[in-house]
Amino acid sequence: MYLLETRWSLIYYLLLEVIHMGAIILEHYLKVRHETLKICEPLEIEDYSVQPRDFVSPPKWHLAHTTWFFEELVLKPHNNKYTYFNKSFSFLFNSYYKSLGEHWQQHERGLLSRPTVKEIRAYRSYVDEHMIDIIKASNFNIAMNNLIMIGIQHEQQHQELLYMDIKYILGVSQSNLLGAKNIALKAKKFNQDWKFFEENIVEIGSQNDVFCYDNEKPCHKRYIYPFAVSTTLVSNGEFLAFVNSDAYLNPKYWLSLGWEWVLRENIKHPLYWKRIGHSWFEYTLNGLQELDLNAPVAHVSYFEADAYASYKNARLPSEFEFEVYLRSEEVKVYSNSLHPHCVKSPRGQLWCWTNSAYGPYPGFKPFQSTLKEYNAKFMCNQFVLKSGSIVTPVGHYRDSYRNFFPPEQRWMFSGIRLAKDL
Amino acid sequence: MYLLETRWSLIYYLLLEVIHMGAIILEHYLKVRHETLKICEPLEIEDYSVQPRDFVSPPKWHLAHTTWFFEELVLKPHNNKYTYFNKSFSFLFNSYYKSLGEHWQQHERGLLSRPTVKEIRAYRSYVDEHMIDIIKASNFNIAMNNLIMIGIQHEQQHQELLYMDIKYILGVSQSNLLGAKNIALKAKKFNQDWKFFEENIVEIGSQNDVFCYDNEKPCHKRYIYPFAVSTTLVSNGEFLAFVNSDAYLNPKYWLSLGWEWVLRENIKHPLYWKRIGHSWFEYTLNGLQELDLNAPVAHVSYFEADAYASYKNARLPSEFEFEVYLRSEEVKVYSNSLHPHCVKSPRGQLWCWTNSAYGPYPGFKPFQSTLKEYNAKFMCNQFVLKSGSIVTPVGHYRDSYRNFFPPEQRWMFSGIRLAKDL
Amino acid sequence: MYLLETRWSLIYYLLLEVIHMGAIILEHYLKVRHETLKICEPLEIEDYSVQPRDFVSPPKWHLAHTTWFFEELVLKPHNNKYTYFNKSFSFLFNSYYKSLGEHWQQHERGLLSRPTVKEIRAYRSYVDEHMIDIIKASNFNIAMNNLIMIGIQHEQQHQELLYMDIKYILGVSQSNLLGAKNIALKAKKFNQDWKFFEENIVEIGSQNDVFCYDNEKPCHKRYIYPFAVSTTLVSNGEFLAFVNSDAYLNPKYWLSLGWEWVLRENIKHPLYWKRIGHSWFEYTLNGLQELDLNAPVAHVSYFEADAYASYKNARLPSEFEFEVYLRSEEVKVYSNSLHPHCVKSPRGQLWCWTNSAYGPYPGFKPFQSTLKEYNAKFMCNQFVLKSGSIVTPVGHYRDSYRNFFPPEQRWMFSGIRLAKDL
Amino acid sequence: MYLLETRWSLIYYLLLEVIHMGAIILEHYLKVRHETLKICEPLEIEDYSVQPRDFVSPPKWHLAHTTWFFEELVLKPHNNKYTYFNKSFSFLFNSYYKSLGEHWQQHERGLLSRPTVKEIRAYRSYVDEHMIDIIKASNFNIAMNNLIMIGIQHEQQHQELLYMDIKYILGVSQSNLLGAKNIALKAKKFNQDWKFFEENIVEIGSQNDVFCYDNEKPCHKRYIYPFAVSTTLVSNGEFLAFVNSDAYLNPKYWLSLGWEWVLRENIKHPLYWKRIGHSWFEYTLNGLQELDLNAPVAHVSYFEADAYASYKNARLPSEFEFEVYLRSEEVKVYSNSLHPHCVKSPRGQLWCWTNSAYGPYPGFKPFQSTLKEYNAKFMCNQFVLKSGSIVTPVGHYRDSYRNFFPPEQRWMFSGIRLAKDL
Repeated sequence: MYLLETRWSLIYYLLLEVIHMGAIILEHYLKVRHETLKICEPLEIEDYSVQPRDFVSPPKWHLAHTTWFFEELVLKPHNNKYTYFNKSFSFLFNSYYKSLGEHWQQHERGLLSRPTVKEIRAYRSYVDEHMIDIIKASNFNIAMNNLIMIGIQHEQQHQELLYMDIKYILGVSQSNLLGAKNIALKAKKFNQDWKFFEENIVEIGSQNDVFCYDNEKPCHKRYIYPFAVSTTLVSNGEFLAFVNSDAYLNPKYWLSLGWEWVLRENIKHPLYWKRIGHSWFEYTLNGLQELDLNAPVAHVSYFEADAYASYKNARLPSEFEFEVYLRSEEVKVYSNSLHPHCVKSPRGQLWCWTNSAYGPYPGFKPFQSTLKEYNAKFMCNQFVLKSGSIVTPVGHYRDSYRNFFPPEQRWMFSGIRLAKDL
Repeated sequence: MYLLETRWSLIYYLLLEVIHMGAIILEHYLKVRHETLKICEPLEIEDYSVQPRDFVSPPKWHLAHTTWFFEELVLKPHNNKYTYFNKSFSFLFNSYYKSLGEHWQQHERGLLSRPTVKEIRAYRSYVDEHMIDIIKASNFNIAMNNLIMIGIQHEQQHQELLYMDIKYILGVSQSNLLGAKNIALKAKKFNQDWKFFEENIVEIGSQNDVFCYDNEKPCHKRYIYPFAVSTTLVSNGEFLAFVNSDAYLNPKYWLSLGWEWVLRENIKHPLYWKRIGHSWFEYTLNGLQELDLNAPVAHVSYFEADAYASYKNARLPSEFEFEVYLRSEEVKVYSNSLHPHCVKSPRGQLWCWTNSAYGPYPGFKPFQSTLKEYNAKFMCNQFVLKSGSIVTPVGHYRDSYRNFFPPEQRWMFSGIRLAKDL
Repeated sequence: MYLLETRWSLIYYLLLEVIHMGAIILEHYLKVRHETLKICEPLEIEDYSVQPRDFVSPPKWHLAHTTWFFEELVLKPHNNKYTYFNKSFSFLFNSYYKSLGEHWQQHERGLLSRPTVKEIRAYRSYVDEHMIDIIKASNFNIAMNNLIMIGIQHEQQHQELLYMDIKYILGVSQSNLLGAKNIALKAKKFNQDWKFFEENIVEIGSQNDVFCYDNEKPCHKRYIYPFAVSTTLVSNGEFLAFVNSDAYLNPKYWLSLGWEWVLRENIKHPLYWKRIGHSWFEYTLNGLQELDLNAPVAHVSYFEADAYASYKNARLPSEFEFEVYLRSEEVKVYSNSLHPHCVKSPRGQLWCWTNSAYGPYPGFKPFQSTLKEYNAKFMCNQFVLKSGSIVTPVGHYRDSYRNFFPPEQRWMFSGIRLAKDL
Repeated sequence: MYLLETRWSLIYYLLLEVIHMGAIILEHYLKVRHETLKICEPLEIEDYSVQPRDFVSPPKWHLAHTTWFFEELVLKPHNNKYTYFNKSFSFLFNSYYKSLGEHWQQHERGLLSRPTVKEIRAYRSYVDEHMIDIIKASNFNIAMNNLIMIGIQHEQQHQELLYMDIKYILGVSQSNLLGAKNIALKAKKFNQDWKFFEENIVEIGSQNDVFCYDNEKPCHKRYIYPFAVSTTLVSNGEFLAFVNSDAYLNPKYWLSLGWEWVLRENIKHPLYWKRIGHSWFEYTLNGLQELDLNAPVAHVSYFEADAYASYKNARLPSEFEFEVYLRSEEVKVYSNSLHPHCVKSPRGQLWCWTNSAYGPYPGFKPFQSTLKEYNAKFMCNQFVLKSGSIVTPVGHYRDSYRNFFPPEQRWMFSGIRLAKDL
């Protein structure tokens, strides 16, 4: 009797939780979808369509692709009665999912003046309406909730990409992002120091039940040797000394591919730095600003990060060392700026390059079906970055998070934190 | 006494003429400037900024560049008090005039989301105001009137380029030009025939005092051998037979560079043709239409025109033969369509490829100063086209007009008219 | 009776002539074939196979291709019993005759270490033996004699190409052509002057019965305006003044494509010039020599020739003007050097760029069948050069000869002769 | 007394050992130098100079570069009186050591017809003479002995590269390596099976005092999860099933970069496979042979190895797993063939791709000075291969050896061994 009651209680409680979960997901969905539009609010219509480099996507493409993700992976397979908003979007806004058929080429996203921003906003509304229905109806469906959760996290990733792409696009004509959240604060000066870690066997990867991507699993053991991590990010001032030492003219600091990249692309300084006369400036989402020597150096490639470490007789941390370091810090300072301004924060400022090539963890199992293409097929010629940046959506930080980019890339909000052997 | 009177009469008469000339130029200026905006009227804002291929320019670039031409070549050198609308436009909207300093790269015109269309329209208004003043004040200045006339003709050239570029841009997403002047008429069928010309010494080039470019002068003698020109443009139906004979797979018809182009670019048919199932369609400014077999084949390269001539055991006319032919025709049918629909018209339908490489006439003198770069420096690896097309502004037709493009180009409204030796 | 005798005499005489013709062709064939091998005599085996740039062919390829020409166009179609020396050579040594099927790619000629030079020499001997037989047997066959004559002229063209390619190849390691015929003489100084020609209708093209290529026919009339041609080639000293005036940094002298070429290829002086400290040197087939200021400037592109003319307020002659000029000169100085050393000679020193795009003469009829591909398909984006050079085989000079190259090319022995309007 | 004696004994003994060491090194040096020439013996002079692809080096370049290594790193810094054989070789035969100044570009090695093979052989003799002197004189110099040992190992690496490059070069014209050691044996059939390993902490890297490269150190601990390695290499027969399943047309098996590579390079099968009619052949150093289905599949890229593993629902082993596996095997079958013929051998057949990106071991210290560039600067975008191949010099095998290549490369003797999680 008592047992039965207890069971009923439990069932009742779980039901409540599941229902509550549905409500939470719906709220989360709506909030994230809204945030994406909000990021684009200050843009002119002309800003939505251009693609200044192959790796940049037009903002309107992000608006459409994140919507396509819900349409193609949630609505189409799980709602028999669903009819496409526009059949051709299925082809136009697929990014790289070969299992879903042919798709528009990435480097040609900027060729499309149509569909217009207005049409894409209508597309978002149309899909949102159907998504609200399906979320409301899927309270008890854990698989569906997981799928929707991936879609939401996916859209958050594109929110960060939107900031990266908008910065690159406006940077071409050195325009401000009108309405940029606030003016970057003058950074406070911090001295570089080291934090020490002992030899150990550590657990790496997502250790609990919160949402994570397939590449963060399984949680597994690594053998770690004694190391130290810098308590500060490399500052603009420190990096300027590297530039002034003619390091971009000296092959001795550089990886072989890095040196080829420096020569081929005629690289002389971080992406958004600009020398005018004898002064250095930096393009930011608040426009061109005098270079703040106390702020962290941003928008550097792996090649530059590695060369700087070599110049300092140090090295970059491994992704495992970085994860251990992140877990060791209590306070994380998150930013509400659009430009990094604190070298001291363990995270929330800039993604930090690690010297770990992006690969599978032992026992790695990719997402199944179409989502198998989400992460696994990119495990080649990329390096892991850890920590999150000022333009990472707050709900998107995780100690186990593995961001990854090819070593020459630098339009993301990337920085440098040094490590050394003991 | 009588003599004096006569002289006063003459002076009075010439004054009137000059004043009248000023009024005519002003009217002409305003009409042409207005027409440019009218061409763009049906566009969405998103259509103004994209550049799908290096040779295409964004419509907003044309709006700005034609304005830049008046600002840089008329206002700046001839009005001491003139202040730039925006100093950076001097750099951004210079097309290729090296004598005016550095300029934005042609293939990067599509990277610029800013200035916006709105700003560029304001730029046009600002320059127009100052131009109206200067035109009104320059009644007696023949050099100035000539300069303004070149600016007007220059803008008319860009009106045709606007149609070409808009067609290419909308073609990427197969959109209609909303408000396209009218629906293309079904073309009437005409049989091919020849018009004969005897051996002769002919005068080539601009023979009288109307406006012309430097490359149309001097008028000079050419020795012409007996030849015949086809009374019709090659039709889609005739060209389809060429396609169906697998001519795009057979090197025997092609110039060596042409065959390399066919293989490299995987060319299989004219630019805007499209095969769907067993039917052929053609993209037009009125959208995708079933291929009209009686209409003239359009948007072919020199390579294709030459290969077709070879396939028909004929040849292309020389530019001199074509000029003789044009002068021999009384009636010229001009179109008010946005798609060619009559193989019979001697001109006003499509620019016809000639087998004449674009070079200087004997005794050629280029425009002076900055305008030296207008035509002369392009006399290499291009072929002359004659006749004008449906999107050529009406005041821009001349028998002596020499259009020119590289042999692989075909986004202009180009067609084929055959010739043969007798 | 007398008539009959006369006829018999005539027949007898003609027979003798025809037999004699056979003997002449055989002698000519053997002499030219021998000369080709003699050109290569000073080479090391390693020199025969390399291809430092796409447009250069390995010397052993020339040895094989000229042989292939006789095998494929004479022996195979006209000797039923002929068996290939090596079946694969049919594919390997076809240059660009698409009508004979697939062929090895031009830019990959340097990839082939095999067949060896020894094998290719055996191939030459094998084909020579069969050619001797067929020449001896074809006394009365005019078509055959013409075909063989084309093969001989073809081989002479490749003799000049051999000198060009050997110079380029040895130039990479700045080696001498051991045994180069003789040391270049110090050039004598001549002052520049003009030779004048009046307005006229002139006959252009091959005017008589000597051998010529299809592109030199038909002989036809051209209307010529008064012009002058320089009595001297442009000297190194004169061209050095152009270089020293920073002309390679100044777009105002250059064609648009020429300026792009200068920037893209980082061009700063003629191909074989080299600056060491404050002195200028020139790589020649006799090794690196101090630049001889009185010798003609050699190895310039059309772009450079045209820019130089522009710098001198002159122009390049048309090919028709040049032909008229050549016919007007009695004495032609042919060289027996491997480096040009006389600006005064009307020909026999350097091919002179004309401002005539290479195209068909009015009434042009290409060679038939396979040989249709010899000249006609290259009539696009090339310019005509006239006169012949020091490395042109003596029997290969003709006033009507039309050499042609793309405007950026300069590894041939090209020079500049100015012209002007009167 | 006794102690003193003992010490004298020890000194005497060590002296003997050091003298002996000198003799051993000299013998080793001479043997390896001789072996390099022997590998090239069957070549024709023409085979020595060509470079069919950027990554292939001409055989004569290897002969010169290995000699340059001794000249530049041993003779020049350690023999004051040494005079260069030829000063320009210092520039021509430096591969990539930026610290030694400018060098000839890698992709232009095939442009050099000079120096000739004969000159390079004389260069080898000249350097050998001086090396013999210095080796004889350096008995007591451990640093020098180490340096010479690196030079010898370096030359052995180039011996393997010589086989790879000769195979590629002769493959272009499908020639045999005349005198190839022996005809490949018909391979014996073995069934695939697994060898199991338990969870463990293992030691990785060079564990004792034998010669090794800097990248094999330090010996360090790794945490290994349970895994199995296949007892056989993937056979041609097994791989043919993959090809026949249209796997090269199906993106689902491929890494993203791998799929781009397949499309861009039009890859359809392993490098040296060739389909003629319905049969498969393989180009080997013994010429074109019918594909031996029991022999191991060779000359595959990382992309192909990874795709094959994916097709078999397996994975590639990590380099650590592979090292553990190698140490577990007693018998290693080394080959004396020029073509792999045994899937069963744990090593001595083909280098096996691992899924480990090539990076530094924890605590890695690169060689010092110039040799710092030997390995460290290549730790980016490459994958580790383990085991050694039939063309690896016997003295060059080590369990800790880390070979590395970019993922698209396949002209080395590479194969596939599968692994799986337990």
